Amino acid sequence: MRATPLEAVLHTVDDRAELFIADLQRVMRQPSVTENEADCEACAELVAAMMMGEIGLDAEVLPSRHNPVVVGRSAQRPERPTLLITGHYDVVSPGPDEDWISPPFAAERRDGDIIGRGAADPKGNLAAGLKAAQAWIEAAGDLPVNLKFMIEGDDESETGHLGEFVDAHRELLRADAVLLLDAGFTRDGNSPIHLGTAGSLAVELQARTGTKEPYFIWTQLIPDAAFRLVWALATLKDADERVCVEGFYDNVQAATPAELALMAEYPWHDESELEFWGIPQFVTGARGVEAIRRLLYEPTCSIHGIEPGLDRPNATSLIPCAARAWVNFHLVPEQDPDDILAKLRHHLDRHGFGDIEIEVLRRFKPIPGSADSPLGQALLRGAGQVGVSTYLLPHSFEFGDKWCWIGQRLGVEGALIGVADPDRRAHFPNEHITVPYYLNGIKWVAATFWEYSHAGQT
Amino acid sequence: MRATPLEAVLHTVDDRAELFIADLQRVMRQPSVTENEADCEACAELVAAMMMGEIGLDAEVLPSRHNPVVVGRSAQRPERPTLLITGHYDVVSPGPDEDWISPPFAAERRDGDIIGRGAADPKGNLAAGLKAAQAWIEAAGDLPVNLKFMIEGDDESETGHLGEFVDAHRELLRADAVLLLDAGFTRDGNSPIHLGTAGSLAVELQARTGTKEPYFIWTQLIPDAAFRLVWALATLKDADERVCVEGFYDNVQAATPAELALMAEYPWHDESELEFWGIPQFVTGARGVEAIRRLLYEPTCSIHGIEPGLDRPNATSLIPCAARAWVNFHLVPEQDPDDILAKLRHHLDRHGFGDIEIEVLRRFKPIPGSADSPLGQALLRGAGQVGVSTYLLPHSFEFGDKWCWIGQRLGVEGALIGVADPDRRAHFPNEHITVPYYLNGIKWVAATFWEYSHAGQT
Repeated sequence: MRATPLEAVLHTVDDRAELFIADLQRVMRQPSVTENEADCEACAELVAAMMMGEIGLDAEVLPSRHNPVVVGRSAQRPERPTLLITGHYDVVSPGPDEDWISPPFAAERRDGDIIGRGAADPKGNLAAGLKAAQAWIEAAGDLPVNLKFMIEGDDESETGHLGEFVDAHRELLRADAVLLLDAGFTRDGNSPIHLGTAGSLAVELQARTGTKEPYFIWTQLIPDAAFRLVWALATLKDADERVCVEGFYDNVQAATPAELALMAEYPWHDESELEFWGIPQFVTGARGVEAIRRLLYEPTCSIHGIEPGLDRPNATSLIPCAARAWVNFHLVPEQDPDDILAKLRHHLDRHGFGDIEIEVLRRFKPIPGSADSPLGQALLRGAGQVGVSTYLLPHSFEFGDKWCWIGQRLGVEGALIGVADPDRRAHFPNEHITVPYYLNGIKWVAATFWEYSHAGQT
Repeated sequence: MRATPLEAVLHTVDDRAELFIADLQRVMRQPSVTENEADCEACAELVAAMMMGEIGLDAEVLPSRHNPVVVGRSAQRPERPTLLITGHYDVVSPGPDEDWISPPFAAERRDGDIIGRGAADPKGNLAAGLKAAQAWIEAAGDLPVNLKFMIEGDDESETGHLGEFVDAHRELLRADAVLLLDAGFTRDGNSPIHLGTAGSLAVELQARTGTKEPYFIWTQLIPDAAFRLVWALATLKDADERVCVEGFYDNVQAATPAELALMAEYPWHDESELEFWGIPQFVTGARGVEAIRRLLYEPTCSIHGIEPGLDRPNATSLIPCAARAWVNFHLVPEQDPDDILAKLRHHLDRHGFGDIEIEVLRRFKPIPGSADSPLGQALLRGAGQVGVSTYLLPHSFEFGDKWCWIGQRLGVEGALIGVADPDRRAHFPNEHITVPYYLNGIKWVAATFWEYSHAGQT
């Protein structure tokens, strides 16, 4: 039996392992902390050079509002589907060198790990996408799909401008699907395929009850803002974990039987999750598939923190005259954050809390995914080809990730996977990627190109 | 008609005004921040010297666990009632000199104010007691009562040892009543006579829901400690300001008709209080006598602060796995903090919050006073003699003040008044006492000696 082109590609990944590791180290050694524009510029140029030199793509470093965006394109042939791979080249600050076992931009290899800021987030993921394309070119002389890359430099900032960039370059970026390579495997040893995202309405609620903090010995008469806020917060969710804002669940879609069947096959382990979080049980006592269903299909609300706290001056003798809390409403398709905001206002008013002020901190509409997604199915079959454990998450508990709204902006589907190992320490000192995860990541992406080129043909 | 001895004493205060002001400046110029033991030692010696030299008292500087206590005694004649005057000579830190319009220990006189740390709290009050005795000696050659002074040096520390000291010197301190001179007039232009104190049970409530802070996108499954604490807190008091802990009000004594009649005469102004606190109304909408009644006779609970707050790392993405609040139960006679603590535990358990931990931060039993108090009546009549506006507070919203538990330890009644002006800035930069308040304070105390010597004879 003749080997498929993919088999040759996978062999090439093994044959070229040392080179591909060196390429990852090369990009890791170019510092690219988001705030450092010169470093980011240099990293963008390096990524563009890697696209052009080793894969033969057309690549451009295009200006954005802050750091530039690298866009690369293979030859675009009409008979092939087009995949837009997105990711970023910027990294978070490594913090003090002394927190690291080897310098954060040295990309040292130790015990099979490549250690350094960005090893997993994002450069291991970024390199996996690029090296997958290179392996195809080297093994087969061509790609099975039309590829586009859009690699930005402002992912780790609070104020990215990628939406603007996408809107300004719709033609350049036109594709059949968007694949975001970021993050990695979960602690259960799987890299789930996220096909949609949860939504969010995050608000600051504030109670102001006066202009001076009363002495505690006056609180028979003078209102306590902390109590007022507590009363308001307590009305938001009941002890059964049901959000009490009227109409909150109006648009929530139940999991379909097909989705429930999908969930029943997820490699979910109640006990290891409970142990990880250090809790005796999940809220509502959910277990197994019901726990998964809650995570993916059940909206909720939570409190991030409440102020003022106890370290302010005179906390032992004074009571707050103003108190605030950050509350997040975790939304699922088809909930709408604007609708929920209006309902929240109505809820507070109806419960006598017309004085509680609401400031919106974040609003993001959930985006549903579909288990029938051609890209999702290609990722699943690709994983099967290379022995990666994964599963489809049509609804996702992940929030607001870019693949999704980029896809939405371009009018196509999207998916997110990550290739780094579970214990990758992204954003922490001693971030690393383990060589087998990196190489397997390249293979998974390469296999996905192959499978996506057959999408709809299975 | 012949002048009373008191009239001569009051004239003497006017005649000796400049000298008495200089004496206050002298004691103000001796720094005595609680933590500075050498300064406090020197201040204690100075106070003892002032007792001996100018008033002819026996005075001793007695060791305590930290700063010494000055005890002074006049001749003790069996036919005269004995008054124990208490107060302190230590002051809080002045903070940076540049916050002051004149150096904090210079005791400069400006526009009729004597400015400096301790001007009001406590040295204006302390000097008022001493100079009242001096005026009697100078004008009448004798005192109308047996006087004892107990002036401590650890009032401004969190861990005073005065209770221990009192227990160790019961014979030395034996008296018919205890008068604490501290604080001053309120913003309504009165110096009320406190005859009892409120009580307190202050607790930290803590909810622990796990060992790791969950990402907000996991809170469909992983409990949020902030919400759990909020639910527990919200059960403690309802929107009508009624504390919901079962049995909380069991021992609360209603105001007697006589006490209500007293309150009806208090110079209370709803509008100025509302304006001061910047609130549209008092809790429950109370006004007038009902507001006063709430303040003095109604127990309540309040929240000082809640943690964690919003300035911790990753507050935007993480939810607390532990949260805590300081809650104060303001108690009135005959509530018992230990009883309330047991009821609080029972309440939390009964509402499903057996996991909420309680740590006691403070417990102080309320001490009732009586409008029939001989010292209270003497203070009231004394005030009438010198034109001071005052009124009796048998129940008090003030909390745990020392006169009360000193009296309780010695088995006698007690009272608190203060002579400093309303805008005295105690504990803040530019603390001061205005000369007329100081001189009137001396007169009030001197008149009180006179009236107390007739106690029971009116």
